[in-house]
Amino acid sequence: MADRIDVYVDYISPYAYFGWRNVRRLAKERGLEIDVHPVVFAAMLSHWGHLGPAEIPPKREWTFKHVARYAAVNGIPLRGPKSHPFRSLLPLRVTVAHEDDRLAIVDALFDAIWAEGIDGQSEEETAAALDRRGFDGAALVEKTKDPAIKNRLKEITAAAIGRGVFGVPTFAVKDELFWGNDSLDHVALVLDGKDPLDPKLVEQILARPAGVHRPR
Amino acid sequence: MADRIDVYVDYISPYAYFGWRNVRRLAKERGLEIDVHPVVFAAMLSHWGHLGPAEIPPKREWTFKHVARYAAVNGIPLRGPKSHPFRSLLPLRVTVAHEDDRLAIVDALFDAIWAEGIDGQSEEETAAALDRRGFDGAALVEKTKDPAIKNRLKEITAAAIGRGVFGVPTFAVKDELFWGNDSLDHVALVLDGKDPLDPKLVEQILARPAGVHRPR
Repeated sequence: MADRIDVYVDYISPYAYFGWRNVRRLAKERGLEIDVHPVVFAAMLSHWGHLGPAEIPPKREWTFKHVARYAAVNGIPLRGPKSHPFRSLLPLRVTVAHEDDRLAIVDALFDAIWAEGIDGQSEEETAAALDRRGFDGAALVEKTKDPAIKNRLKEITAAAIGRGVFGVPTFAVKDELFWGNDSLDHVALVLDGKDPLDPKLVEQILARPAGVHRPR
Repeated sequence: MADRIDVYVDYISPYAYFGWRNVRRLAKERGLEIDVHPVVFAAMLSHWGHLGPAEIPPKREWTFKHVARYAAVNGIPLRGPKSHPFRSLLPLRVTVAHEDDRLAIVDALFDAIWAEGIDGQSEEETAAALDRRGFDGAALVEKTKDPAIKNRLKEITAAAIGRGVFGVPTFAVKDELFWGNDSLDHVALVLDGKDPLDPKLVEQILARPAGVHRPR
């Protein structure tokens, strides 16, 4: 049995918000320790030359409808941030800076940005939202200006990319990655020792050649 | 109540294979007519400058693991095609050419490519697989060489892009699009008159500005 789960998040993603809430519950139910990794999703997109869902106009519209329906069906509070996409470096750096109780700061920032709907780019709003949740907002925002904190966020992101993380949320159990809020069903099966995967089938499929390569 | 559902598919996508099977069942349960639209997913990617899941190496690996687990959990036969990604123009054109009973030809081609595992680029294998399923494979493959059939596929794809379809499978109920096999839960709610969407919330979120634009 695994006793910990790695969770990769960026506050830019509503699915990371949902996935964070869901993995918190899953971890509680199963007595798992969460190791949370704040990562810059935009850096992953740039690394692969990929586009985020909010960068394709009809996909942006579809995504927020899906997100609103998912929140309604699952009783998750949702107002959404004041701008989107937004630069999520500030809350990510706050997360890196607050080492003492990282799960609580992640709870607070997701809640402030997605449930309350603050502007995650604003130092004032972020500090005030943290104050309201029992943190020293001004001190945390001040710490984000430390080059060591900025570098640490870059390092965490680079390590994630090196490990094969290409999006958020991503969950890692033992050495296996699971991408997306909706992959938690499979994570739960794996944690319960009921992984339905036939590794040989996947090995065979992955070993087959590409029949076509699109020009990049 | 809606009485029909549009379904956009490309044989390249394992999720279109799953979504097709699932929407067939949903439509049967609810007495819905399916209008199936064969579309070239690669043309959608090119239109938006986007990458498919199989074009990002760690995402390709994750996708096929997810696909294999999903198939196992849901009891869906899966061998996967002989190459992937592959040029899906041949089975798409066969689908356009076979106007009489388009749902049956889509059933046959998804089954041949994903359950049986033929090479969807091969005229011989495709014709033989169609023969085994009670169609005149050679005649259908011959028809795919007709420029009118090729143009019709392009037109269907362009119309889909014009309507906001950006991926496969996509489902349309009345005028609303739902992307992805996993959006069928929401489709079912909408069909049952239980749409949880707060349109005002989505309108507000979509009207908010972007806080950042990545250079393209």
